Amino acid sequence: MLISSTANERIKAVRRLRRGRERRQTSRTLVEGPNLVSAALGAGVVPVDVYTVAGGALVARCEAAGSTIVEVSGPVLEAVSTTVEPQDPVGVIVIPEPARLETRRTVVAVEISDPGNVGTLIRSAGALGWQIALIGGADPWSPKVLRASAGVQLSHPAVAVTSFEQLLTAGLRPVAATVSGGRDPGSLEEHQPIALLIGNESHGVPPVMVERCEILLTIPIAQNVESLNAAVAGAIAMFSLGAGKESE
Amino acid sequence: MLISSTANERIKAVRRLRRGRERRQTSRTLVEGPNLVSAALGAGVVPVDVYTVAGGALVARCEAAGSTIVEVSGPVLEAVSTTVEPQDPVGVIVIPEPARLETRRTVVAVEISDPGNVGTLIRSAGALGWQIALIGGADPWSPKVLRASAGVQLSHPAVAVTSFEQLLTAGLRPVAATVSGGRDPGSLEEHQPIALLIGNESHGVPPVMVERCEILLTIPIAQNVESLNAAVAGAIAMFSLGAGKESE
Repeated sequence: MLISSTANERIKAVRRLRRGRERRQTSRTLVEGPNLVSAALGAGVVPVDVYTVAGGALVARCEAAGSTIVEVSGPVLEAVSTTVEPQDPVGVIVIPEPARLETRRTVVAVEISDPGNVGTLIRSAGALGWQIALIGGADPWSPKVLRASAGVQLSHPAVAVTSFEQLLTAGLRPVAATVSGGRDPGSLEEHQPIALLIGNESHGVPPVMVERCEILLTIPIAQNVESLNAAVAGAIAMFSLGAGKESE
Repeated sequence: MLISSTANERIKAVRRLRRGRERRQTSRTLVEGPNLVSAALGAGVVPVDVYTVAGGALVARCEAAGSTIVEVSGPVLEAVSTTVEPQDPVGVIVIPEPARLETRRTVVAVEISDPGNVGTLIRSAGALGWQIALIGGADPWSPKVLRASAGVQLSHPAVAVTSFEQLLTAGLRPVAATVSGGRDPGSLEEHQPIALLIGNESHGVPPVMVERCEILLTIPIAQNVESLNAAVAGAIAMFSLGAGKESE
């Protein structure tokens, strides 16, 4: 199969996946470029379709794993890509079943709206051995989040949480990161897995949640700088709290 | 003065500032939106021109400080903005004289190409009390870097460094962050201010520089995750090394 027209119905369907509603309705999303396609394969998420101009070893691996390979022209690859410089190949995956919230050390992104920040938090959580949960904010299956996560969303997907209560029910102790008034993250001794809440870029953790946290954490910063980036603050707090301090 | 045509020569000159060469030739750049314009004023960098549709208190502060206020139509504001959703006002500033490399704890971004990462490192360095130096990579005065730095590039500008030797001449001890084989950042005792090298997103610190570092640092991460984001790794290392451990 070779598609050279961007008006092709199949191509139009792929293009619609850049919209969140379409991703939710079809349970599909895009993995773009060799790194993400390879990460998907590595995580056992075999693309259903792979769009490629040049083919190659990775495309052959996808085909062997069961993907339908669709050869396309350069302009069609550009049309299905969401980046300015399209990367070959572009895969379509079925979004995996949601992961369940486990009772272990968790970072919770609360209404974080920037896809780069959400993706970076997912990547950092995976690297530092933390579970990550999301309350609202950017869609973790959007192409931008997948890219910023460097594919970690495929191997260590974020858990969607619908309420603060769900954290408590899972046996997690809520701790809010705040820009002032909290304890140094290095000073915390934990005997119960925590849920570390990192808030929206502009508004922080909602006051209604902060009120319900027994512990507040603040990363000490210079007086004449307003704040750290949300994803950076989350990473520093996770690293500082450490994976080893948790009582099992 | 009210400008309603995007073909106006003055507007065309502002639009050219999105190009790095134009910024270098004219020593000017853009500060977009209330947060950055306010950060510029706060850092004593008074915009020479301020383009606005709606005026307001911040624009009045700029005028009082000496800015030329240029009223423009909505489409003209859009034309001078580099973001999809333009923010009122947009200022033009003269890029300040380069800061000099001081003999104190420094993070060095080596050929970091993503403007978001460079800006985030500048923001983290300012917040955590570190000097930041750049060897190559993204232009710290580009609108994207200014945005990602949350204006910290205006108050705590990065120092441009042209060679590794310059770090040694300044009395800094070079330490490279590497993805494996280095020491835990918490284990480092320093008796001389360090230059902590954070490398390019794909290639890391160039081998020719790693060879000349006496100490390598590695942030321990999960085996099945490839790496941390460069700006996150830099922030964790800076935080972990701490401002207090340095002998003065």
